[in-house]
Amino acid sequence: MTQKLTDHSRLCLHTITTKPWSLQQCIDGYNRAGIPAITVWRQALEPQGLAASAKMLKGSSLRVTSLCRGGFFPAATADGRAKALDDNRKAIEEAHAIGAPLIVLVCGAVPGIALPEARKMIADGIAAVLPEAQAAGVKLAIEPLHPMYANDRSAVNTIRQANDLVQEIGSRQVGVAVDVYHLWWDDTLEQEIRRCGKAGSLMAFHVCDWLTPTREFLNDRGLMGEGCINISQIRGWVEAAGFAGDVEVEIFSTELWQTDQTQFVERIKQAYLNHV
Amino acid sequence: MTQKLTDHSRLCLHTITTKPWSLQQCIDGYNRAGIPAITVWRQALEPQGLAASAKMLKGSSLRVTSLCRGGFFPAATADGRAKALDDNRKAIEEAHAIGAPLIVLVCGAVPGIALPEARKMIADGIAAVLPEAQAAGVKLAIEPLHPMYANDRSAVNTIRQANDLVQEIGSRQVGVAVDVYHLWWDDTLEQEIRRCGKAGSLMAFHVCDWLTPTREFLNDRGLMGEGCINISQIRGWVEAAGFAGDVEVEIFSTELWQTDQTQFVERIKQAYLNHV
Repeated sequence: MTQKLTDHSRLCLHTITTKPWSLQQCIDGYNRAGIPAITVWRQALEPQGLAASAKMLKGSSLRVTSLCRGGFFPAATADGRAKALDDNRKAIEEAHAIGAPLIVLVCGAVPGIALPEARKMIADGIAAVLPEAQAAGVKLAIEPLHPMYANDRSAVNTIRQANDLVQEIGSRQVGVAVDVYHLWWDDTLEQEIRRCGKAGSLMAFHVCDWLTPTREFLNDRGLMGEGCINISQIRGWVEAAGFAGDVEVEIFSTELWQTDQTQFVERIKQAYLNHV
Repeated sequence: MTQKLTDHSRLCLHTITTKPWSLQQCIDGYNRAGIPAITVWRQALEPQGLAASAKMLKGSSLRVTSLCRGGFFPAATADGRAKALDDNRKAIEEAHAIGAPLIVLVCGAVPGIALPEARKMIADGIAAVLPEAQAAGVKLAIEPLHPMYANDRSAVNTIRQANDLVQEIGSRQVGVAVDVYHLWWDDTLEQEIRRCGKAGSLMAFHVCDWLTPTREFLNDRGLMGEGCINISQIRGWVEAAGFAGDVEVEIFSTELWQTDQTQFVERIKQAYLNHV
């Protein structure tokens, strides 16, 4: 049995989890709730721009865990792939500006591009932006996505693939983000988490829950405890592999976004103690 | 490049693919269309009963490829697991009665039962009914299901797991059903198909397509060519592994079930030549 979490000192919320809130509302709301850390989604930067966002975050007491998200490297044309690189370079600048030590990569997949080809474009894309990431002191975490997203969101669909890719790239700057939603079903998860930890590549840990039935592919994730994932077991594996960083709550839920977000944050805090 | 299919001599339709049709309508419709083979779903047997169904099928010129489906072994109680065994024994009788040499197993998963435990119940369940299957001369094909079904339909979610399970059971009576819908995303698919063939365990090949977006989890599969799966490539792997059996079209689609089924069968025949 994994030891229970007894306080919120490692709890981080993704701004997307409280999507109805602006960045300022997230900062204020998380602060009020005693949540120490934030992962910033790039769309939360847009309304007020990067400089103002960075000022807000640096003026707050929140720790910035990561920036979500870079990636989406595959594209049908060379021009499309070059644009993806530019966008990743912009993300690196943004991460640097807001003090995020890490960017989460949703690696990308495009209907019409075969998976092996998409995976090659992903490896090439990461290699291309690696110098900028190194110069900015920003790490890049490959997040393997559930196989149900293989055709349009990420061609990296298992932690084994992510570990292989990190090994192939061979830079301490590039690692893996473990999200229980994407990986819980995999019977090699424990061993691949161990491998990832041994390689010093385990850079992030995301939690939410898998609902049954899941009513649609994107925005029907559950609060921890509402679904079937043994989150504390996976946290135990991650910690046994040496990870001691923030536990990031990333929930996309049309249903939960419609609830009062202040109360929702309190429910998250409770679910974190009970089910993570 | 896989050699193109030039006739329909290996084409098999699942009765569920033309769900609005009764078994008799399926038999007549497939016959009229020159389709030589049928896989019978158990609910198609119910209205007229097993004896009448068997008579219909034996009186037709259709080859019965398999019976769908057995499995669903995991259950929370011993009584529930015993009922599942009874149901699988009934399926074996049905397969024997209609002349189906094979039963496809959707192995089962139950919310609240951890996957390793569910997998143990699956292995135990198959072992328990194996003597009856052997006595009836009916083979059992484990169909790994897409990881998005891991919590409620099958705890066997990759072909590697299915191959491992077949190896563990160690009987020529038990093998694997390869369905492109469930397995297309897996970067170990080619090697595991080869392994499956070498073991003499490749017992069935199911086709349809993966739509993007997929609007819901169960009944939004596409006709071959409508989605992203490189079906002919996978058929090539399956044939290189020694499989020369029927190519079974299994499509669950609320949308396609609403169309004229006679015309739909013609579309399937065309899609089979163009995209399988």
